[in-house]
Amino acid sequence: MRSIKLLREYLRASQPSNFVFFNSGPQALGPSVIYGNVCMSYLAQNAIGSQFIAESNVPRKGDRLRREGRSRFHYFGTFQKKNDFWVLNIDLSTNDHADGNILVSGDSWTEQEKTITAEAEKHLSAASVDGIFCVAGGWAGGSASSKDFIKNAELMWSQSVWSSSIAAKLASLYLKPNGVLQLTGAAAATDGTPGMIGYGMAKAAVHQLTKSLGAKDSGLPEEASVLALLPVTLDTPMNRKWMPKADHSTWTPMSFIAETLHKWTTEPGCRPATGSLLKLTTADNETIIDPQ
Amino acid sequence: MRSIKLLREYLRASQPSNFVFFNSGPQALGPSVIYGNVCMSYLAQNAIGSQFIAESNVPRKGDRLRREGRSRFHYFGTFQKKNDFWVLNIDLSTNDHADGNILVSGDSWTEQEKTITAEAEKHLSAASVDGIFCVAGGWAGGSASSKDFIKNAELMWSQSVWSSSIAAKLASLYLKPNGVLQLTGAAAATDGTPGMIGYGMAKAAVHQLTKSLGAKDSGLPEEASVLALLPVTLDTPMNRKWMPKADHSTWTPMSFIAETLHKWTTEPGCRPATGSLLKLTTADNETIIDPQ
Repeated sequence: MRSIKLLREYLRASQPSNFVFFNSGPQALGPSVIYGNVCMSYLAQNAIGSQFIAESNVPRKGDRLRREGRSRFHYFGTFQKKNDFWVLNIDLSTNDHADGNILVSGDSWTEQEKTITAEAEKHLSAASVDGIFCVAGGWAGGSASSKDFIKNAELMWSQSVWSSSIAAKLASLYLKPNGVLQLTGAAAATDGTPGMIGYGMAKAAVHQLTKSLGAKDSGLPEEASVLALLPVTLDTPMNRKWMPKADHSTWTPMSFIAETLHKWTTEPGCRPATGSLLKLTTADNETIIDPQ
Repeated sequence: MRSIKLLREYLRASQPSNFVFFNSGPQALGPSVIYGNVCMSYLAQNAIGSQFIAESNVPRKGDRLRREGRSRFHYFGTFQKKNDFWVLNIDLSTNDHADGNILVSGDSWTEQEKTITAEAEKHLSAASVDGIFCVAGGWAGGSASSKDFIKNAELMWSQSVWSSSIAAKLASLYLKPNGVLQLTGAAAATDGTPGMIGYGMAKAAVHQLTKSLGAKDSGLPEEASVLALLPVTLDTPMNRKWMPKADHSTWTPMSFIAETLHKWTTEPGCRPATGSLLKLTTADNETIIDPQ
């Protein structure tokens, strides 16, 4: 209790430049969206007095999320805290390098919202933050005739849409007037996705959420920006493991994303128009941001 | 048991022109998508030997779905079965005018899928159907700062996306090679929907589902069509009740939709391209179908 009280006092007194950072969901095959750890390292090296909230999705009992959560915990164990970031982590497991942690609990969308917002209030109180980055997600395939079509669609929904909409809720509560909320869509979902229907539905919903939040009276602060990154394939260790023979020069480096997020946060004038869907196209190791 | 056995024999022997018809979810305020009853009457008068499966969404305990389900039951009580439709109804309540009923049960997407597909197999066995019309849906508002934002988003998802994707699953199992699957989107969700974010996400997902199902290797029969109707406002009794002073000449009449669905079913050559999102625009009581 004492640490929370001290933290509140610190936040009230310093009004630091804060990050709220949602960490990735479980790593998975395909065009996944997992880059929390790299961004976290980058931001830790480049920002001052920022907060970092990382969230992934609630695990269902016995599913692979919990197992992968553990491996990610080890992954984060390598994180080196190099400056005075104030970091609040929302995830399946505690991150010892964060300044605060919220463990996701609840088996439904509304339960997660309730527990996360209640815990966030304890950590943030009247403070507001400069950025919220939701990089939770995952990937699973399935056409309409697949045995696991509905099961996978349900998983994709909880991984991408629960996390993104709860990020939006937190943004409505804690984002600074000119803050930035970043969500993670998918380039593939700008067209039909017959072999991964559930994934496409979830990402299309995130795109719609972005457009809605970017419009007037969305519930976000008026001058805030909401931007969705639409990766094709990210250059992550897990993607390299599962697709070792792919052309990695067309994969988007994590450093590019981290630098971009950092720039958007510290230089609001550099942001694309709020509500934008931003496809990341990488060729010959060069990445461009292509508004859809 | 005997009636099911007879039914199976009948279906096997006659291979009738079948409808599978998903009925509407609960009626609600706003740009809702409730027209099952009118279509049902129309189809009953114009088609022969067709099957009709109507589904709405699973109610959560104590929510208004169950109460409205009861009122819809009364509504269907006025249905006059005028010809030899064979009608299978999937809904929250039994429809005495249908030839078969499946009562939706299960509190999750996968539970609903499991119970509905198991029951459908009992009714349909090896039979296939000419059309599946999913007009389930509902409406609820909410910006990101609304108290009920996540709660309403969850409701919208279960009403529109559970039903639509289970309709797609049934189509993969029971639709004839040149059959038609109709889903219900919303014109509003082709752009941001800041005041009804959950509704927009759900309908954007239905649009994405339509595009996915219309693409190659979606799991539907190769020559089948999937078409989404994107109403603005439908001329239903409930919409008239809640919006008595609106300009009703811009509302789409139910008869137009019923006639359109009937034509698409009986004249495959008249269908728009599969995967189309079809906005319904009504002015001066005239409706046009506007592919998006």
